[in-house]
Amino acid sequence: MTALIQPAASDVTGSNGAADHLWMHFSRMGTFADKPVPVIERGEGAYLWDTKGRKYLDALSALFVVQAGYGVEEIAAAADAQARKLCYFPVWSYATPPAIELADRLAELAPGDLNKVFFSSGGGESVETAWKVAKQFFKLTGKPTKTKVISRAIAYHGTTQGALSITGVPGFQIPFAPLVPGAIKVPNTDFYRAPEHLAGDEKEFGRWAADQFEEAILREGPDSVAAVFVEPVQNAGGSFPPPAGYFERVREICDTYDVLLVSDEVICAYGRLGTMFGAQKFGYQPDIITSAKGLTSGYAALGAAIISDRIFEPFGRGTTTFPHGYTFGGHPVACAAALANLDVFAERDLLGNVLRHEGALEATLKQLLDLPIVGDVRGNGYFWSVELVRDQATKEPFTRDDCERILRGVVAPGMWEAGVYCRADDRGQAVVQFAPPLMCGQAEFDQIESAMRSVLTDAWTKL
Amino acid sequence: MTALIQPAASDVTGSNGAADHLWMHFSRMGTFADKPVPVIERGEGAYLWDTKGRKYLDALSALFVVQAGYGVEEIAAAADAQARKLCYFPVWSYATPPAIELADRLAELAPGDLNKVFFSSGGGESVETAWKVAKQFFKLTGKPTKTKVISRAIAYHGTTQGALSITGVPGFQIPFAPLVPGAIKVPNTDFYRAPEHLAGDEKEFGRWAADQFEEAILREGPDSVAAVFVEPVQNAGGSFPPPAGYFERVREICDTYDVLLVSDEVICAYGRLGTMFGAQKFGYQPDIITSAKGLTSGYAALGAAIISDRIFEPFGRGTTTFPHGYTFGGHPVACAAALANLDVFAERDLLGNVLRHEGALEATLKQLLDLPIVGDVRGNGYFWSVELVRDQATKEPFTRDDCERILRGVVAPGMWEAGVYCRADDRGQAVVQFAPPLMCGQAEFDQIESAMRSVLTDAWTKL
Repeated sequence: MTALIQPAASDVTGSNGAADHLWMHFSRMGTFADKPVPVIERGEGAYLWDTKGRKYLDALSALFVVQAGYGVEEIAAAADAQARKLCYFPVWSYATPPAIELADRLAELAPGDLNKVFFSSGGGESVETAWKVAKQFFKLTGKPTKTKVISRAIAYHGTTQGALSITGVPGFQIPFAPLVPGAIKVPNTDFYRAPEHLAGDEKEFGRWAADQFEEAILREGPDSVAAVFVEPVQNAGGSFPPPAGYFERVREICDTYDVLLVSDEVICAYGRLGTMFGAQKFGYQPDIITSAKGLTSGYAALGAAIISDRIFEPFGRGTTTFPHGYTFGGHPVACAAALANLDVFAERDLLGNVLRHEGALEATLKQLLDLPIVGDVRGNGYFWSVELVRDQATKEPFTRDDCERILRGVVAPGMWEAGVYCRADDRGQAVVQFAPPLMCGQAEFDQIESAMRSVLTDAWTKL
Repeated sequence: MTALIQPAASDVTGSNGAADHLWMHFSRMGTFADKPVPVIERGEGAYLWDTKGRKYLDALSALFVVQAGYGVEEIAAAADAQARKLCYFPVWSYATPPAIELADRLAELAPGDLNKVFFSSGGGESVETAWKVAKQFFKLTGKPTKTKVISRAIAYHGTTQGALSITGVPGFQIPFAPLVPGAIKVPNTDFYRAPEHLAGDEKEFGRWAADQFEEAILREGPDSVAAVFVEPVQNAGGSFPPPAGYFERVREICDTYDVLLVSDEVICAYGRLGTMFGAQKFGYQPDIITSAKGLTSGYAALGAAIISDRIFEPFGRGTTTFPHGYTFGGHPVACAAALANLDVFAERDLLGNVLRHEGALEATLKQLLDLPIVGDVRGNGYFWSVELVRDQATKEPFTRDDCERILRGVVAPGMWEAGVYCRADDRGQAVVQFAPPLMCGQAEFDQIESAMRSVLTDAWTKL
């Protein structure tokens, strides 16, 4: 089980020496002993070049990050100007103009009363912040036993040990046990593999899936539960969208039991779904939004937890302190890059572009359903997954061996060799994921579909 | 109890609006309801300017970060060039030229066989990485029950919930309980407040302090302990240097019980003590060094855990994966900034400058010992603390009320008004901390001493 599947040996351009000292993330380092590491050198718009000069369509926005594309002059220039003016200063009791301005901007953009911005350096740190806010909030408001969190099976929320506890991928947790106690899991919204009695009825399935939170809260005891963590569209497992009515019911359950609803939008915020925040796409109101990645389009490391006035209120009383912080959280250069990035979003109407073309991306990817190896195509906005199966009719999933031989051995290197960078993933079932930069359109969709058609046709013969 | 003490209301230049949406780190947000937030706008060399145009000596390198100073053209230019070429790409099974090159450089600079570099976005993430490496290392090598860590009282190792468990500041942990189980604390190397029977004999004290690790390991059971986390010079509590022989004995204990020695050098690496790594200053060999902050001089968010060949070895076997990573870890722009920063270190001989002047900094600060409020002046390199007391002879410490009224109410705002940015801290006893940029010299030392003399003289009359 792994997060990113690297292309296989033979035809890959790259460097052997790369793995001498660089310990790559989520990687089988042993495989680089006798094969080169693919080295990415340059980017422009939605395209990447490796060190051998080969060109690739970046159909994953690097890692759901580069929303505005590579080489955006305005973002680079804004970061550079800030680096020369004030290369760094913490927001520890002091502030900097870009951090203030970005906090104001995010408060304005975020839904409802989400008006307080706690910066970090990335997604996992934002998730840690949200859980810590929830724990202390209930201690400050007379319910000190509310500390647990409930999240969903296979969901990824980060790798620092608090965030990792919330992550629902057992293979990522087991080597590091024990973790933070009190992180409970419930089923996710995998409608394609819904329990038999709910198959075919999305609304009923959604109600059932949402009710799992209520059952967990009652099982654990409402006095012990602080927060629910959910992504608008769950990434790991393969871009599971919420069934109709799902979030309405989750919000209702949270209100009933005084549990905070944390919308983990590290992937879904900043245009990935065509709205600034994922919660806006589906019309629910979180108590906290956690975000990172697309906030700067990757030009600098930045994350933000955006917290409601109601939750902040007890932290603003008297001499109360939220004893939490990150040295690089709210880095002025990163905030300047984020401000320029949001300007680019507006000037180039990136949200509008996603909303105008998401239907075309869906339709283009769903053409692949005529291939017998494709079981499901699902997602939202510019965030889609193609699930591979042994049998379309029975939905028979890939075995572990299929994941090794076909997903890892044929599909991943095949797409790379076809010039399309994407993600093959078997944290849940076997899926291939696509999340192109937000200015992409039909030409890029067609390139993805065409590469997939060719690679999956080949894979089917080897299954 | 707090980490950074903000200057008080009245005379501070700043912005009231800053606190409308920006939730500052480790801050009493309620105090900003009716007083302005100090806003830093610009930096040049070792100096800062706020939004009102007032100038300050940065005697803390922002937060032990800006080693090379503000406005260093070479670092900004290198970051900018990389942002335009490839603004971002993950090191998840792929690599980028700056990440490869920086890993090579760090492996070369780090002591002994510390040759594998796992990047992160900051210090806490590096600490999380080190603990997770230790846990999985022992699972891979047939000692799966070794999971606990031992660290020192008052030591700060980060705020994500794994790192926070290692942190020895109860006030930072209590609101967030439960944390990761198995993080044990032992006494630190506060020789100034050594147990009475060891007072005055530094070597005996050092042996006793190191032996605390052995006692804890035996108490917990060696089969349960994975790692010891120690800073070369402990920051929180006030720059506690290691007594002679301390690290030799700690290394010996770790070897005896097969426990990894993690040198947490988030503050002490990259020249803070006049050597590239803190372990080199004191001549011990860690199994893992955790670092961040000074690696880029703050021009971009970056951290690195540097791991020995011996510890990496089982992770490099077959299809073994270390299922861990950070989206922004090893960010190419940050790595480019770090490479330029290390070039600046060499070109400007910053390490040499620290080694040549650390004695003068010590001597200058120790002039303050003629003030009755100064109990101790301690540190190493460009990393010093001045401990305030009610009585020099008896070492009677500041009370909680003194910390509020005098440290927070007089000293912190006094230094700020005197044009010196530093840190007043009461996580342990009341201290004022100094960690100037590495090119500073006698002129800056004198400015610090003079401001302290004036402010502490005033504070004494109010005690």
